[in-house]
Amino acid sequence: MAKLDLNADMGESFGVYRYGADEDMMPYISSANVACGFHAGDPAVMHRTVQLAKRHGVKIGAHISVPDLLGFGRRYMKISANDARDYTLYQMGALSAIVRSEGVELNHVKLHGSFYMMTLEDKKLAQAVAGAIARFNNQLWVFTVQGSEMEQAANGHGLRVAREFFADRPYYRGTGVKMFGWEIAEIGDSQSVADRVRSLVDTGMVNGADGFQWPFTVDTICVHADTPQAPAIIRAVHQQLVQAGVDLRAPEA
Amino acid sequence: MAKLDLNADMGESFGVYRYGADEDMMPYISSANVACGFHAGDPAVMHRTVQLAKRHGVKIGAHISVPDLLGFGRRYMKISANDARDYTLYQMGALSAIVRSEGVELNHVKLHGSFYMMTLEDKKLAQAVAGAIARFNNQLWVFTVQGSEMEQAANGHGLRVAREFFADRPYYRGTGVKMFGWEIAEIGDSQSVADRVRSLVDTGMVNGADGFQWPFTVDTICVHADTPQAPAIIRAVHQQLVQAGVDLRAPEA
Amino acid sequence: MAKLDLNADMGESFGVYRYGADEDMMPYISSANVACGFHAGDPAVMHRTVQLAKRHGVKIGAHISVPDLLGFGRRYMKISANDARDYTLYQMGALSAIVRSEGVELNHVKLHGSFYMMTLEDKKLAQAVAGAIARFNNQLWVFTVQGSEMEQAANGHGLRVAREFFADRPYYRGTGVKMFGWEIAEIGDSQSVADRVRSLVDTGMVNGADGFQWPFTVDTICVHADTPQAPAIIRAVHQQLVQAGVDLRAPEA
Amino acid sequence: MAKLDLNADMGESFGVYRYGADEDMMPYISSANVACGFHAGDPAVMHRTVQLAKRHGVKIGAHISVPDLLGFGRRYMKISANDARDYTLYQMGALSAIVRSEGVELNHVKLHGSFYMMTLEDKKLAQAVAGAIARFNNQLWVFTVQGSEMEQAANGHGLRVAREFFADRPYYRGTGVKMFGWEIAEIGDSQSVADRVRSLVDTGMVNGADGFQWPFTVDTICVHADTPQAPAIIRAVHQQLVQAGVDLRAPEA
Repeated sequence: MAKLDLNADMGESFGVYRYGADEDMMPYISSANVACGFHAGDPAVMHRTVQLAKRHGVKIGAHISVPDLLGFGRRYMKISANDARDYTLYQMGALSAIVRSEGVELNHVKLHGSFYMMTLEDKKLAQAVAGAIARFNNQLWVFTVQGSEMEQAANGHGLRVAREFFADRPYYRGTGVKMFGWEIAEIGDSQSVADRVRSLVDTGMVNGADGFQWPFTVDTICVHADTPQAPAIIRAVHQQLVQAGVDLRAPEA
Repeated sequence: MAKLDLNADMGESFGVYRYGADEDMMPYISSANVACGFHAGDPAVMHRTVQLAKRHGVKIGAHISVPDLLGFGRRYMKISANDARDYTLYQMGALSAIVRSEGVELNHVKLHGSFYMMTLEDKKLAQAVAGAIARFNNQLWVFTVQGSEMEQAANGHGLRVAREFFADRPYYRGTGVKMFGWEIAEIGDSQSVADRVRSLVDTGMVNGADGFQWPFTVDTICVHADTPQAPAIIRAVHQQLVQAGVDLRAPEA
Repeated sequence: MAKLDLNADMGESFGVYRYGADEDMMPYISSANVACGFHAGDPAVMHRTVQLAKRHGVKIGAHISVPDLLGFGRRYMKISANDARDYTLYQMGALSAIVRSEGVELNHVKLHGSFYMMTLEDKKLAQAVAGAIARFNNQLWVFTVQGSEMEQAANGHGLRVAREFFADRPYYRGTGVKMFGWEIAEIGDSQSVADRVRSLVDTGMVNGADGFQWPFTVDTICVHADTPQAPAIIRAVHQQLVQAGVDLRAPEA
Repeated sequence: MAKLDLNADMGESFGVYRYGADEDMMPYISSANVACGFHAGDPAVMHRTVQLAKRHGVKIGAHISVPDLLGFGRRYMKISANDARDYTLYQMGALSAIVRSEGVELNHVKLHGSFYMMTLEDKKLAQAVAGAIARFNNQLWVFTVQGSEMEQAANGHGLRVAREFFADRPYYRGTGVKMFGWEIAEIGDSQSVADRVRSLVDTGMVNGADGFQWPFTVDTICVHADTPQAPAIIRAVHQQLVQAGVDLRAPEA
């Protein structure tokens, strides 16, 4: 039976502000990417989110970002490799202490927004981040895109990588995933999303929004919490994966 | 031979801003209280400070604060017990990851500024902070004032407490230490400070700025990095302690 | 015909975060208190809010706070009189430039959260704030509570004061308005709120949540944007005031 | 007699942090670029800086930045044209209120760090900034580089431009000024800097660090407050300009 992880960004509220649909989505995922205060989240939100994940037996990862609360970590910001290293350590550590205070353990790291995108192609940043993770805890999994600089850097530092597929983002041959600026028409309704995931699981091929198909290796499937209809999407994807007989679980030692 | 710890606040720079005299003082202390980004410090400053402490064999503690960079954590801010708990976890964890990436370990926690003062008398906050520390790592030492709510809370959670004497702050009978708003005349020059410390070590009595003397138990002596002449003070205090035959070292397991 | 102003807090979103019900409430109010980035709001949110207010012919005021985005400006923070003065100038000015770029003018200032509460009783802060407003623009109105230090300070600096009644907060004899920690049962549904406002307009007496009545002078009525059912409340209050023949308009020169 | 302005960045302290040499430099300049809280400065620092400038009869400008206190506004950050517009309005306005409370007036706007550099070449950002300035106060001067997109945009919006020469930065034929990453050897000591300024004033030609000379039009000369020996440089430049018979004064209506 195939194993797959289902991940979503959680804990993106801040102070009085509510964001995402954590309560609705947590029952259906196996890994929660928890914001660490740089693009979203604050110490109290992080704690509540960790408690919610623990209650549902969901594994917890640090969702780390460049420091840009105002831009939700989506804006490109030119940072040095040392900054990337230290921002990584700081955020992983902050979440890790909250996680440990609840008697559970950090399981993975996923970069957020522009930080995620930068490390796909920028070797120096990818190396700095992977080195920081490895020196902090070399048992952590890294979620990133197959074939990226981040994947290479993680492997080079002895870290295990879960290769990610974005269920609710359109893919195009050649350019790959379109993270920002997509239209709802490019991804379709929750059923279309779930069908595309099912097809990927069954065939090992991704259905591009351009009508092309190509081989794609996936270990973890992401559904974003701020995509319209996110709770419906996560339920539909979850149902399809269960029907496909997939063993839904976080990557483990 | 008596054992004593000598501690100072380190890593209080931020971005382009330089603060304190870390390079000058680190050779003379045994414990460094490292700012964690809430009142001062940033991930890069924290990393440099940890490396400097490691190079000098100085033990590292998390110097944690309410979130108030603009006020340097000195302003009273009304926070809940849960906030106190989560701010504590977040900051300890952030520093802990940087410390661990350098192959060393966090040894103590010290509260900063208004947070320190609040937990001397506010039982709920003290309990929340002590509980957070204990759940994160029950081997950590807590630096606080003898007889305070913080000391009681730390003891109650099974944490070890190093009782602190502020070498460069005036003490008054009844009210104790005067942390803010003192005049330089109340503490004197570096030699006066060192003599007062020596007298405390020799007699177990503190010399108040009001001319009174009273018994005082001390495990760790603090010299602030932002007191005028801080490097001269730390050298004078260090010299007096060495001459008194004190074994200068951080509290240990 | 009686004149009354109807005000609400607007522009309390931040970055990707949405807060309040600006679009729904703006058609029913005459004065918008626009957050200026210290407790909520950011330059883009402020600009959108000013444009929305302008479109509805709603007068604009600066809703100023202590710097505490994480606590939404609700936490007491000990600030100096000079800080109060400078925070006031900074926020009024920031909004004023956006307002002026849209060809309209700032009409009033209202303090937010803990800053509002502090200036009711702290004479030094109230004087500092009133002085800052008067030196910036002595035509601005100040919204505050009748009989407060803030009212006195504003009058003393030659500023005009609009005395405020909180439609959706319970009042008690002796202690006055209960701003935080109230239960929904203490204020009732939207119709109860509107009836209480109507009664105040008709009789000049406030109906306390404790069953008592006492005289109350009001120039502007506040409905909070984050009270549950805020849009329903503002519509009900608006309707009652219109039926009472009140001339709903912002205070003017 | 030639007129020239001499400008420097002022008010770059923050909270307890001190930066630059405001007291030493203010007597020698005619225009102060005052930080507005986005890269440096805070409301209290801004107020003190405005008072210091006023005391010396120095004209005041808003030194505006992208929101990046941690990076001192030097890091490239991808912002939209609307963000550029709103950040500009917010910062100009904030400073403007403090300036007005002291009975003086804002005279110019200068962009800081990466924001300055971006608007030299990015037409959309330059247009957004110029439009914002013009709609706020079309009497303000804009300090920028001759031939830049910012100059064109300012002119297009009816704003007056003071073309800037950086006394303490090396120039190269073709690439122009080297703002970041220069070595002290490229600019020389304070006398070399002053001689280069004198030569520019006398001949209308800039002496490049590469040995070339080329024509350069200058209305305002900048000396940075954080260049090593900044106070010595400003005194030397000031002396040379006085000896050259230059009428040192800020651009005026």
